[in-house]
Amino acid sequence: MTDKKKTTIVLFSGDYDKAMAAYIIANGAAAYDHEVTIFHTFWGLNALRKEEIISVKKGTMERMFDKMMPRGADKMGLSKMNFAGFGPKMIKDVMKKHNAMPLPQLIEMANEQDVKLVACTMTMDLLGLQQEELLDNIEYAGVAAYLADAEDGNVNLFI
Amino acid sequence: MTDKKKTTIVLFSGDYDKAMAAYIIANGAAAYDHEVTIFHTFWGLNALRKEEIISVKKGTMERMFDKMMPRGADKMGLSKMNFAGFGPKMIKDVMKKHNAMPLPQLIEMANEQDVKLVACTMTMDLLGLQQEELLDNIEYAGVAAYLADAEDGNVNLFI
Amino acid sequence: MTDKKKTTIVLFSGDYDKAMAAYIIANGAAAYDHEVTIFHTFWGLNALRKEEIISVKKGTMERMFDKMMPRGADKMGLSKMNFAGFGPKMIKDVMKKHNAMPLPQLIEMANEQDVKLVACTMTMDLLGLQQEELLDNIEYAGVAAYLADAEDGNVNLFI
Repeated sequence: MTDKKKTTIVLFSGDYDKAMAAYIIANGAAAYDHEVTIFHTFWGLNALRKEEIISVKKGTMERMFDKMMPRGADKMGLSKMNFAGFGPKMIKDVMKKHNAMPLPQLIEMANEQDVKLVACTMTMDLLGLQQEELLDNIEYAGVAAYLADAEDGNVNLFI
Repeated sequence: MTDKKKTTIVLFSGDYDKAMAAYIIANGAAAYDHEVTIFHTFWGLNALRKEEIISVKKGTMERMFDKMMPRGADKMGLSKMNFAGFGPKMIKDVMKKHNAMPLPQLIEMANEQDVKLVACTMTMDLLGLQQEELLDNIEYAGVAAYLADAEDGNVNLFI
Repeated sequence: MTDKKKTTIVLFSGDYDKAMAAYIIANGAAAYDHEVTIFHTFWGLNALRKEEIISVKKGTMERMFDKMMPRGADKMGLSKMNFAGFGPKMIKDVMKKHNAMPLPQLIEMANEQDVKLVACTMTMDLLGLQQEELLDNIEYAGVAAYLADAEDGNVNLFI
C-alpha cells in the first residue's frame, strides 16, 4: 500500500489516435509520479502485438482474426478520417513535423517509466492471441486484477 | 449510506463488444461486492430492448428509429470488423468455443447479482423507446440520478 | 483548494451525440455545484470551432484538416446511423420536438455555468487549429493541467 496517486486506463479501442491519447495521459501521469496501469482488452491488444510474424499454432477462426487485425501499434487505423489508411499517414506526417512522439515510441516510453502494461487474458483467448505474439514486459491478467487496481484509483478511464 | 465500493458505468455505445466489456466489468465488480450501476443512454439503450415486437403507438420518426436500431443485445453489431453482421457471428462462435458468456446472459447475470440497470429517460424520449419495449427489472432515471451515483464512485467509466 | 466535488471530462470524440452526452453530464454536474472541466482533444476540438471561416495562415496539411473537419458543433456527425448527414438531421428534429437543447446551446449553457472549457494545445498544433478559430472563453492547456484537475476528481470520464 503506497500513498501514490493512481491512474488506471482500460484501452479497449484499436484506433491509433485513441491509443495515442491513452499513452499520452499514461506517460503524463507517470511523470507526475502516479502509479499507472494500462489494461489492454479487445482491439486494444493490437497495440501490444509484435510487428514480425510469430509462428504459433492457431485454429481457423484465430487465423482469420490474426490476418484481419493490425500487427502492432504502427499499423493501427484512425477512429475518424481513416480514408483507407491515408489518414494515419497524414497524422504521422504532422506529428513528425511537430516532433510529437509516434505511438510505438510512446509505448516504449511508458515501459521505461514503469507504466504497468497488462494484456487481458480473456480477450486474448477470444481473439486467439498468444503471449509469444505480444511485446515483452507485459503482464497478463483478468478483470479481477483490473478492478483491484481501479477501485483505489484517482483517474479511471475507459478509452 | 454504505461502506461498499461503487462502480458506475455509462453505457452510451450500442456495440456488442463494448456492451460486453461494460457487463464483464460490472459483473466482476458485483462479485467483488461493489454497488454497481449501469446507466444506459443513447445507443446503449438497445441492449435493454426486448427481442419481440411490442406494439406501442409511435410517431413517424420514432418508427424509423425503431426499425433502424437493433432489437436487443443479441442483435447488436461490433465496433470493429462488423463486416455487415459477419463479425458478430465470428465473435459469438469463438465465445462459444471458449465457453464465454454471450451478452444476453451477461445481462441476466447482472440482474441476478443486483447490478442496477438504469435506462436514461431523456434519450428514451428522443429515440421514441417506451418502458413496455425494455426488459423488466429496469429503473428509469435521468442525469441527476446518474451523478448522485457517480459522485461517490470508485470506478466511473463511460463506455 | 475547495470542498467542491469535481467532474472532469476528456472530450476526444468529434461526434454530435457523444459531445451532447458530455455536455449534458457537464451541465448537470455544474447544476449540482461541481467544479466542472471539459478538456477537448483531437476531434473533440471541433465542437469549439467557430462556424465562420477565420482567415489564418496554414500549411498544406493543416489546410486539408481544416477542410475535412466539421466547422463547429452544429456540423458534427453522429457516431451511429449518420447516413451521410441524414442521421444528425433526424436527431435534431426529434430534439426540437422534445424541446431538448441542441449542442451549440448546451455549450453556451456550460459557459454560463462556468464550466471550464479547455482546448488541448498539443492536438491543436497537430490539427493546425489556431486560437482565433475557436470560441471565446476557452482556456488553453496540456495534459499536465488535465491531470491536475482529474487527480482530485470525483467523476472522471473519457468520451
